[in-house]
Amino acid sequence: MQVDLNCDVGEGFGVWELGADDELLAVVTSANVACGFHAGDPSWMRRTCELAVERGVVIGAQVGFPDLPGFGRRHLEMTEAELADAVLFQIGALDAFARAAGARVAYVKPHGALYHAAARRPDYADGVLHGILRFSAPLAVVAPPGSLLGRAAAQAGLEVALEGFVDRRYTVDGGLAPRSQPDAVLTDLDEVRRQAVRLATEGHIAGEVRTSLATLCVHSDTPGAASVAHEARRALTDAGVEIRPFVRAG
Amino acid sequence: MQVDLNCDVGEGFGVWELGADDELLAVVTSANVACGFHAGDPSWMRRTCELAVERGVVIGAQVGFPDLPGFGRRHLEMTEAELADAVLFQIGALDAFARAAGARVAYVKPHGALYHAAARRPDYADGVLHGILRFSAPLAVVAPPGSLLGRAAAQAGLEVALEGFVDRRYTVDGGLAPRSQPDAVLTDLDEVRRQAVRLATEGHIAGEVRTSLATLCVHSDTPGAASVAHEARRALTDAGVEIRPFVRAG
Amino acid sequence: MQVDLNCDVGEGFGVWELGADDELLAVVTSANVACGFHAGDPSWMRRTCELAVERGVVIGAQVGFPDLPGFGRRHLEMTEAELADAVLFQIGALDAFARAAGARVAYVKPHGALYHAAARRPDYADGVLHGILRFSAPLAVVAPPGSLLGRAAAQAGLEVALEGFVDRRYTVDGGLAPRSQPDAVLTDLDEVRRQAVRLATEGHIAGEVRTSLATLCVHSDTPGAASVAHEARRALTDAGVEIRPFVRAG
Amino acid sequence: MQVDLNCDVGEGFGVWELGADDELLAVVTSANVACGFHAGDPSWMRRTCELAVERGVVIGAQVGFPDLPGFGRRHLEMTEAELADAVLFQIGALDAFARAAGARVAYVKPHGALYHAAARRPDYADGVLHGILRFSAPLAVVAPPGSLLGRAAAQAGLEVALEGFVDRRYTVDGGLAPRSQPDAVLTDLDEVRRQAVRLATEGHIAGEVRTSLATLCVHSDTPGAASVAHEARRALTDAGVEIRPFVRAG
Repeated sequence: MQVDLNCDVGEGFGVWELGADDELLAVVTSANVACGFHAGDPSWMRRTCELAVERGVVIGAQVGFPDLPGFGRRHLEMTEAELADAVLFQIGALDAFARAAGARVAYVKPHGALYHAAARRPDYADGVLHGILRFSAPLAVVAPPGSLLGRAAAQAGLEVALEGFVDRRYTVDGGLAPRSQPDAVLTDLDEVRRQAVRLATEGHIAGEVRTSLATLCVHSDTPGAASVAHEARRALTDAGVEIRPFVRAG
Repeated sequence: MQVDLNCDVGEGFGVWELGADDELLAVVTSANVACGFHAGDPSWMRRTCELAVERGVVIGAQVGFPDLPGFGRRHLEMTEAELADAVLFQIGALDAFARAAGARVAYVKPHGALYHAAARRPDYADGVLHGILRFSAPLAVVAPPGSLLGRAAAQAGLEVALEGFVDRRYTVDGGLAPRSQPDAVLTDLDEVRRQAVRLATEGHIAGEVRTSLATLCVHSDTPGAASVAHEARRALTDAGVEIRPFVRAG
Repeated sequence: MQVDLNCDVGEGFGVWELGADDELLAVVTSANVACGFHAGDPSWMRRTCELAVERGVVIGAQVGFPDLPGFGRRHLEMTEAELADAVLFQIGALDAFARAAGARVAYVKPHGALYHAAARRPDYADGVLHGILRFSAPLAVVAPPGSLLGRAAAQAGLEVALEGFVDRRYTVDGGLAPRSQPDAVLTDLDEVRRQAVRLATEGHIAGEVRTSLATLCVHSDTPGAASVAHEARRALTDAGVEIRPFVRAG
Repeated sequence: MQVDLNCDVGEGFGVWELGADDELLAVVTSANVACGFHAGDPSWMRRTCELAVERGVVIGAQVGFPDLPGFGRRHLEMTEAELADAVLFQIGALDAFARAAGARVAYVKPHGALYHAAARRPDYADGVLHGILRFSAPLAVVAPPGSLLGRAAAQAGLEVALEGFVDRRYTVDGGLAPRSQPDAVLTDLDEVRRQAVRLATEGHIAGEVRTSLATLCVHSDTPGAASVAHEARRALTDAGVEIRPFVRAG
């Protein structure tokens, strides 16, 4: 049994830092690197790619809405064509840094409000997918079970890595408990450990449907994110689950 | 005898248009496409690359300072490392669109204040050059005679296309007459025709030093830019100068 | 009988121009000046305020979403608090230029997607209203009949100027024909003249409900916008309708 | 004897935080609030003004270059007119929030590279000054001794508060030791205490010229900035120096 661990990194901008990239890149196997639209800038992208390569972590493009002040968490109405262009731009820019560091962009994971829109709206799923398909190299896609983007990407012949969240509570129908709910984020490390192992070994459960997961997401913006990631990894290893990238680096 | 004709295109942003791209791309052989830092955005970049490919025009990256409100015409103090990162970002983003359109970024030409800084300041020449060298494919460089960037790029083994301006007045020492001077820009089409042919056939003259030029720049932001470009092209053809790209498209 | 004519101006950005401000400011009585979030920048704001004051045109704040590449035409999900802050910021910035030119910001008119959201969604109406109410001077509001923003502003004791569009087709239920419809925009100048007079003299008609209108909007981005504005004004004057600002300038 | 303590606050942007505003606003008497050009955004500006008013701290406009990725620390070539417009825009926007919080913008202090340019270059001093003078209310100016901006502002009849730095090392000729020098920033709290008292009681010394200082700047971005501020304040109070704003709040 094996699973990938992914997390968001490179989410600083200019003088502003965010997240514990250095510690997280010592734990995860796939790094979703911000591409300058909702976070990140050229110098953050270079440094983050260099650090990821140094640590042997696979690089993915964390593509998002063009909304720095909102960190890509606010939904923006874009046409399918605008989305495809925005996604392709971000992949291209990040790939230049990934290749300069000796790797390549291996996959795409939409961020924030785009993650949700691409999961639920056909036009957003198609916009993101078309941006990915137009890139000159084949890319994998990270998406949650049931996502329209995941479905469309699979139909287009792309590798799709379904993902679970080690530190978010799931409802019985397989959805994520809304963040408005007080216990939506798991902070108890025992719970995190159990959920990590359960997701990796049993997969995602929605009613009676089980889906196996290729990658587990560790949040980088929760308090103690590095500890959560570390504990999740240790629990998985202890349970005999091999931690390895879901896709090859380059 | 042969020469390339280059001009700036794709310099709109969002709803805002600039220049006569459609007409100019029917005349020139190399297109300096803006990359979103001082002009251009993902959708403009896609459309411009598609149009360039349709017309058989070679695509170059018109890299500039991160200054949309100033159109890249205002000098910005950046470190060599920041510059290299900014240049690599822009090349990578544009190359994604160039490849999606069936071509590739074939060369780099800095824009506005960066053009001047890279010609005169070693740190700017090196910053731009390092951004270019880190890109995963070899790129040519467009620079004026005497430019530090041109010299550094040649030393690094890159193809350098020295350029002249068909519609700017030259001083006897080979410099460009400052724009503050009333007759700095040639508007008389006869003068333009003569200067185009002279630059293509005799090269650039600074005192007693003659340098042959591989490409001639046609401004896109002067009134009647398309006519100027058209007249220059016709005069060159009439004089037996073949108009062709200085570098291969892909 | 009297009516105000308003139009959008100051919608350039940096080197990019848009609209025929100079001609339009010779025709209208109220100028919706862009404030830098979806169009405009400090220098455009200064020049536009100076020109408006020179022409005796009242200055209003054309507030919009923070989305330059989308020109404020794409809906952005913002919280009520974020909206209020964004609106207050834009009013404050523009008022500084209006006062430097010898006037003041006299009213607010949301732009593009914010215009529609503030008309239909209570949270957007409240967000915009709260930004307006927090400004240190009283401001009027321009809104279409039936708009939630208009209603909320009236309840808060603000002057509300209901507006009609001289060059957009209305449906029988009083809505605007969607732009997807081929004849949504009136281009025939006779139709424009008749609609201008009808809106000014009979008001807006939704089924059996008539509402009188205080201001008529002339688009600045339709082809021949200046002619449309000019014709509308002449038709109104010919019909004995006095053209004057709905609010005092300062 | 009395002196003002000022520091930079409100320098976050979107999700990104910077500095210990909450602690610093409990210590200083004047707050230089970022205005969205190099740091800050509408919501940060509102919250920071509210916090400053709550703590009885005077609000000043920390105006800077339009350069978020460079945090206003990179010199940008702007014309005098562009500068004046940029400065007026920032003051107007911040003043709207200051007034909504029950105060007003009382003074202006340029930030980063603009601070230095306005001190040394006549065109930058004039540009900043003209932006300040065009604002509808009188404003004071914070500048270092010998600054061209300070001189021009005084000649224009504005109140100028000369400032010293409690945690930067001065050279014998009265300049600041360059940051490239290892001991340019004072980290020893004893040194900070002594320098604060010396600057407040003896003033700034350049050769044989003593200039009294109206305000002392406490950096917000040095490690332990809040402790430095706290210690400086305590040392001043112990030495019998009254800590109070150099200008009235509103």
